[in-house]
Amino acid sequence: MIAAATMPAILENSVVTEVPGPLSKAASKQLDAFFDARAIHFVVDYEKSSGNYIVDVDGNRYLDVYAQIASIPVGYNNAALVAAAKSPEMISALVNRPAIGNFPSSNWAELLKQGLFRAAPAGLDNIFTAQSGSEANELAYKACFMLYRRKERGEGVEWTAEETSSCLNNAKPGSPDLAIMSFANSFHGRGFGSLSTTRSKAVHKLDVPSFNWPQAPFPVRKYPLEAHVEENAAEEQRCLREVERLITSWHCPVAGLITEPIQSEGGDNHASPAFFQGLRDITKKHGVVMIVDEVQTGFGATGRFWGHEHWNLTSPPDIVTFSKKAQTAGYFFGDRMLVPDKAYRQFNTWMGDPARVIMCKAVIEEIFDNKLVEQCARVGDLLYAEISKLAERYPEQVKNLRGKGQGTFIAFDTPQPAELVRAMKQIGVNIGTCGVRTVRLRPMLVFEEAHVSTLVSAFDKVLSAL
Amino acid sequence: MIAAATMPAILENSVVTEVPGPLSKAASKQLDAFFDARAIHFVVDYEKSSGNYIVDVDGNRYLDVYAQIASIPVGYNNAALVAAAKSPEMISALVNRPAIGNFPSSNWAELLKQGLFRAAPAGLDNIFTAQSGSEANELAYKACFMLYRRKERGEGVEWTAEETSSCLNNAKPGSPDLAIMSFANSFHGRGFGSLSTTRSKAVHKLDVPSFNWPQAPFPVRKYPLEAHVEENAAEEQRCLREVERLITSWHCPVAGLITEPIQSEGGDNHASPAFFQGLRDITKKHGVVMIVDEVQTGFGATGRFWGHEHWNLTSPPDIVTFSKKAQTAGYFFGDRMLVPDKAYRQFNTWMGDPARVIMCKAVIEEIFDNKLVEQCARVGDLLYAEISKLAERYPEQVKNLRGKGQGTFIAFDTPQPAELVRAMKQIGVNIGTCGVRTVRLRPMLVFEEAHVSTLVSAFDKVLSAL
Repeated sequence: MIAAATMPAILENSVVTEVPGPLSKAASKQLDAFFDARAIHFVVDYEKSSGNYIVDVDGNRYLDVYAQIASIPVGYNNAALVAAAKSPEMISALVNRPAIGNFPSSNWAELLKQGLFRAAPAGLDNIFTAQSGSEANELAYKACFMLYRRKERGEGVEWTAEETSSCLNNAKPGSPDLAIMSFANSFHGRGFGSLSTTRSKAVHKLDVPSFNWPQAPFPVRKYPLEAHVEENAAEEQRCLREVERLITSWHCPVAGLITEPIQSEGGDNHASPAFFQGLRDITKKHGVVMIVDEVQTGFGATGRFWGHEHWNLTSPPDIVTFSKKAQTAGYFFGDRMLVPDKAYRQFNTWMGDPARVIMCKAVIEEIFDNKLVEQCARVGDLLYAEISKLAERYPEQVKNLRGKGQGTFIAFDTPQPAELVRAMKQIGVNIGTCGVRTVRLRPMLVFEEAHVSTLVSAFDKVLSAL
Repeated sequence: MIAAATMPAILENSVVTEVPGPLSKAASKQLDAFFDARAIHFVVDYEKSSGNYIVDVDGNRYLDVYAQIASIPVGYNNAALVAAAKSPEMISALVNRPAIGNFPSSNWAELLKQGLFRAAPAGLDNIFTAQSGSEANELAYKACFMLYRRKERGEGVEWTAEETSSCLNNAKPGSPDLAIMSFANSFHGRGFGSLSTTRSKAVHKLDVPSFNWPQAPFPVRKYPLEAHVEENAAEEQRCLREVERLITSWHCPVAGLITEPIQSEGGDNHASPAFFQGLRDITKKHGVVMIVDEVQTGFGATGRFWGHEHWNLTSPPDIVTFSKKAQTAGYFFGDRMLVPDKAYRQFNTWMGDPARVIMCKAVIEEIFDNKLVEQCARVGDLLYAEISKLAERYPEQVKNLRGKGQGTFIAFDTPQPAELVRAMKQIGVNIGTCGVRTVRLRPMLVFEEAHVSTLVSAFDKVLSAL
């Protein structure tokens, strides 16, 4: 137990320059000579950053509720993570980077068992490790396609010469027409396969060739929920019917379906447990692998370790992918048929990075030791209640508040999100947007009640001035 | 200078059990319960591994000329790398993992300048960082496609509503039909885009949907080269004509062409500088971006820092991708037009991993401080000469020897590569195959003259018994 050492301090946020400040601007300009710097918010002094607070090179200290695009789990310079970074096993993992699939280290099995598997989703007791959310999703898609063709081919039936030769030429039957279904406004990554399932914004997709895969409508709910119960239920039923219609009518077989528990980059769009149970039923019925993309929702931010735990599914999803707060990436799965029929089909040189898997183990220990998922649920409830009050006071600025009972995974629509976020930065809160009109809150799991006050009074100040 | 501390010792290789040994087998079996273990050669004790020698959990010590699929650059437990792993900047990079594109650390620019840019290919003074060779290649492809459409659209012309809406549905004109050309027997990775350019083996590609992109023939040279000068030159001309024919006749525009300097996974296939100069001329003529995939050839193994330095091109390639021995990944490029017209188009959450970029900096220092590229060229010449003698003594077992003047990047064909490799392991040499009949040598850069004797006498022993 290292809880005492790792409890985040409540610091003052303080901004002493315009944002970005002159030193940030100079550093960005220097970098831009050889590394695209156009998306830089500010340049960071990570040594001075601590817990929930990020400090830039101009000495500005921000309460960070964006957290490296929702990927910092337990605070900057977390003492338990520092200890893991200094451990002998870390030194070896950094210096002796293995091709895990061929030459795993003697501690690899224990590292997974004591780390990632402590957090494995119920029912999913196998893992494939990766390096990013995009890669994890694409590996999951490949598992779907190989499983589909394995079933179609028949167990134990050997590959034909026509299959093995045609695939080298990207032609049928070796390179089959098979699809992964995703939802409008989803984000699943930026590789060519994952990007073909991403539907959030043109800036992610334009000019990149993509697969002709189906896009289903994701429920567009009306808020407040309690005033639109029937309408929203009907909308979800409409979407489920469309999912089934697309599966049964698409020009090629749909081997997998991927969904986020909460569509994050696409605007923080939620659906009900009934909707996801409906997806589970339809995918089971049609033999479609159900992938839950927990890259942004996983690791506690919704007040449960996994976002899909809110659904109480009658049977678990087939695959759950993760990244971001895990500080590493990969997918969990249950059915061993998702392990391809031969070795080396699902394979690559590094298959993840043990150094990052060691960090993940420390993150999981920190979460469990300090009951941070429970804390996130509790603090999230308070935060939601406080933002609700802001929504009442500023009804034109804080609309469609969502995330009740979802930990700190809270968002609202606002007419000028970029301006709001800019003003928040200027008074010491680093915060992000998503979709086209949404402000999203993505605090770390160490976000506490005291930080709620800081955040809410900052909102109050900015909203009253807009 | 830390040269003295990092000079590899010449150890005895010694095998005391069958390979894999009982402890390796038991550990693999334990792992296989939750992590596909079918490709494991043996389970490794990295703490006991050192320099060119890898030690397994059964206490067997192998001279390692496979080096984690050609990815260990400067030896196991290299002292300079250990120092980098213990550095304060490493601790911070591990603990405070940034979204580099949004919130880079204050030392990011210097880290690139003092690290990767010391090794940048001539003429390529921009970089995009990534996490794997697959990802690096796919990012390069996206840069090609965005550049192609930018030129087609006209500079400063805004995206149309039709483009931005159609791309979300994976439809034209927003999701265009554009292609990347690659060569027969090439390997460029396993993502959906990179796999569409990989042509090496069915096991990599079967059952995975792919893009209808062109495959050009790669020269099939006859050996010994000096006996087939005209024939091989004619074969290269044939392939170049086919490259140009495909570019001008493909069903859609070819935005980029990717080639390895030496086709590695596909069987260690070489071509002449004249062939690559021909590719440079054709790609220039037709406005096709030329990508050189140096994932396996980069970082010294061919006796030059980059494999393409052997070609003396009249103008540099447009993009050079790297991974493996770099211990991180990404691409270098020269033309700033390859930076897309807007921010966030070429972007992802992590955009690489500063922890691995720090290790890369240490690798580059170690290479330069100890003149390891020069060493690799020198030792490679000796190794090639010694294997030539084996080829004379065992003409049926050692055929088509290649890699003369290419450092230690040496390979030969043999009737039973799997058996040969298995026998080599059993007497203490860890070695790999590629293609369907090839044994490839992939020693680390710290491979020395004394290791040549060990390797060659092991070959002699095994070949004489086969």
